[in-house]
Amino acid sequence: MDRKAAEIGALENENETQQDKDQEEQVVNPWEVSAKEGGKIDYDKLIDKFGCQRLDPSLIDRVERLTSRRAHIFLRRGVFFAHRDFNDILDAFERGEKFYLYTGRGPSSEALHLGHLIPFMFTQYLQEVFKVPLVIQLTDDEKFLWKNLTVEECRRLARENAKDIIACGFDIRRTFIFSDFDYVGGAFYRNMVEISKRVTCNQVVGIFGFIGEDHIGKYSFPPVQAAPSFPSSFPHLFSGKDNLRCLIPCAIDQDPYFRMTRDVAPRIGYHKPALIESLFFPALQGETGKMSASDPNSAIYVTDSEKDIKNKINKYAFSGGQDSIEKHRQLGANLEVDIPIKYLSFFLEDDAELEHTKKEYGAGRMLTGEVKQRLIEVLTKLVERHRRARAAVTDEMVDAFMAVRPLPNMFN
Amino acid sequence: MDRKAAEIGALENENETQQDKDQEEQVVNPWEVSAKEGGKIDYDKLIDKFGCQRLDPSLIDRVERLTSRRAHIFLRRGVFFAHRDFNDILDAFERGEKFYLYTGRGPSSEALHLGHLIPFMFTQYLQEVFKVPLVIQLTDDEKFLWKNLTVEECRRLARENAKDIIACGFDIRRTFIFSDFDYVGGAFYRNMVEISKRVTCNQVVGIFGFIGEDHIGKYSFPPVQAAPSFPSSFPHLFSGKDNLRCLIPCAIDQDPYFRMTRDVAPRIGYHKPALIESLFFPALQGETGKMSASDPNSAIYVTDSEKDIKNKINKYAFSGGQDSIEKHRQLGANLEVDIPIKYLSFFLEDDAELEHTKKEYGAGRMLTGEVKQRLIEVLTKLVERHRRARAAVTDEMVDAFMAVRPLPNMFN
Repeated sequence: MDRKAAEIGALENENETQQDKDQEEQVVNPWEVSAKEGGKIDYDKLIDKFGCQRLDPSLIDRVERLTSRRAHIFLRRGVFFAHRDFNDILDAFERGEKFYLYTGRGPSSEALHLGHLIPFMFTQYLQEVFKVPLVIQLTDDEKFLWKNLTVEECRRLARENAKDIIACGFDIRRTFIFSDFDYVGGAFYRNMVEISKRVTCNQVVGIFGFIGEDHIGKYSFPPVQAAPSFPSSFPHLFSGKDNLRCLIPCAIDQDPYFRMTRDVAPRIGYHKPALIESLFFPALQGETGKMSASDPNSAIYVTDSEKDIKNKINKYAFSGGQDSIEKHRQLGANLEVDIPIKYLSFFLEDDAELEHTKKEYGAGRMLTGEVKQRLIEVLTKLVERHRRARAAVTDEMVDAFMAVRPLPNMFN
Repeated sequence: MDRKAAEIGALENENETQQDKDQEEQVVNPWEVSAKEGGKIDYDKLIDKFGCQRLDPSLIDRVERLTSRRAHIFLRRGVFFAHRDFNDILDAFERGEKFYLYTGRGPSSEALHLGHLIPFMFTQYLQEVFKVPLVIQLTDDEKFLWKNLTVEECRRLARENAKDIIACGFDIRRTFIFSDFDYVGGAFYRNMVEISKRVTCNQVVGIFGFIGEDHIGKYSFPPVQAAPSFPSSFPHLFSGKDNLRCLIPCAIDQDPYFRMTRDVAPRIGYHKPALIESLFFPALQGETGKMSASDPNSAIYVTDSEKDIKNKINKYAFSGGQDSIEKHRQLGANLEVDIPIKYLSFFLEDDAELEHTKKEYGAGRMLTGEVKQRLIEVLTKLVERHRRARAAVTDEMVDAFMAVRPLPNMFN
């Protein structure tokens, strides 16, 4: 799993099916996100294809009402834009029933970029306002299976990434973080096997595009990511609570795993997990290019210095501004393709300022340099805050979050 | 896994590949053992097809020399008749290096029949004469995946079967019994994933005959049976002993799992597991028929009473004797198809008596009834001894054998 708002780019081509290639359609699966040649991801089409629903304003209003808090910026700005049965979660919550959150990350790299933070920032908000428990799966097994890394390296990266995740502000009284290589077993393994008995080879080929030359590790993995959707996978947390609902915040490229999971759920006696799904976070070079996620200049990392951020934004962030100041003053910026505006819409909290910036920039009264300057300030502050928080995360805290333990106050 | 000397019969037809069907060849895989139409299993052909080696008399002599004990009846009578690298195990043992034994059982039924006991009786002998540790895998997950049973029922059967296994006389100081549903996890799971990364979907389709409609539980299972072949799957036993060799006593239908395992072993830094493989134990109705293993009248169960045994042998054991006493006295019995003689060759310890019986019966001087009478005595004694031993196995003993614990004296 890599439930990041993935950078758009051909992460791994091998899973693209021939059919997809022939039609030159956009490809969105857990290992590849690429738009139709020269275009952007068509999210309406994706919603249609996947069969999920758009998160409409009335649902966001309802969240505000139920939580007595202004909706998170990622809801207001449509970063989390699609869902499955999120309304059922809210119905249940309104009746006084609790639920639990489940998200995760495939720990394949030392440093996270901004896109990786998005589901965690949003999940932290959900945990805080709904006061519910959260399980975070680090799929070190998946990364071992898909990447050229050793088991030990994947386990090490899982712990390193756990520090970045903890730095997002999760509540230790309500949060259990686990690595598959350490936690799989017992009730969790039994659920993996229950799930794997209900999914055929043809189905995973259809859903994930696996081919005959792929190793069976790939075929075995989807039940590992499915299992945390069922409360009985965590007997130390949810013993006797088989009826507890699960809400999964993730980027929409993870939808295939959970479509599969939702198909299995009622057949083994559980609620279908609900989903709330985000857009992909664009690369600095823009939403159209096929940029590799491993290109350090395509993203802002949480380890980037102020100078790195300034340099990357000024040098690489694709601008919708015009070629000359004269032309810009005359025509204004094309906000549809402008990366600084996109990034600000993810991270600039102040709605009024964002609207003002878009208006002025779009009308040519504000220049690219000014918008980039504001973005550099916003991101530097965000990254600096994350860096301080991460530096405060000790190995003991990682052990504490990852300890298999009951959470007696998780619903209080 | 069902490392029994399986009754010959179509246990599950669904895994027979079209190719096998077209050629009407014998089919031997972990889920089906069936001879060519109207014939017997051709073991020479099987050895050729699988690529293992015949266990020749010089190897048996060597076992006797190294252990200072007469070879087990199953070696003398050719019940264990094939091997892979058993000579390497003996070479290492001669150099003073130890090894460990690994066998197992798929716990799908309450009561074991005689065929199920064969690998355990033989493994108990190997443990005793070589003084080596033993791991016994109860593949309750496999049985759940292949049969219409619940997880809990499979776990219960695993514990019940463990009692029968313990009753075979294993040494608790050298024996670890585990159920997959309970033990899979940690180092064992990490090895499962290491293995699954090195086996393609095409390979398991070729080896096991899985089809697209099969669930992915089947595709995921072979690494579970492979993992115990590597010492690091048992850190509580073999920590720091990654170089320890493994010897697997099993029926030859399990060979496909371990061919796969042996292919993977050197690529992840381990010795290939060695194998010593048995014939299949024939059904009462004979070696040619396609009898279901679930037909209670096709086998002697360890729960059968003296009366049951007498009745089954007299009524169902296929006789090679002639239709009339006159003809029998004249032509003698056809020992090749005679089930009482087959069974005696598995279980009558006294070589001289067996030779005498075969000679007299083959010459028509002994009648079927007399041979059956002797077999009834032998089996009644065997079953009675097993029943007494099993009755003495308490739940505490099962817990003790299945406890994840170090075995400090396992090599002494």
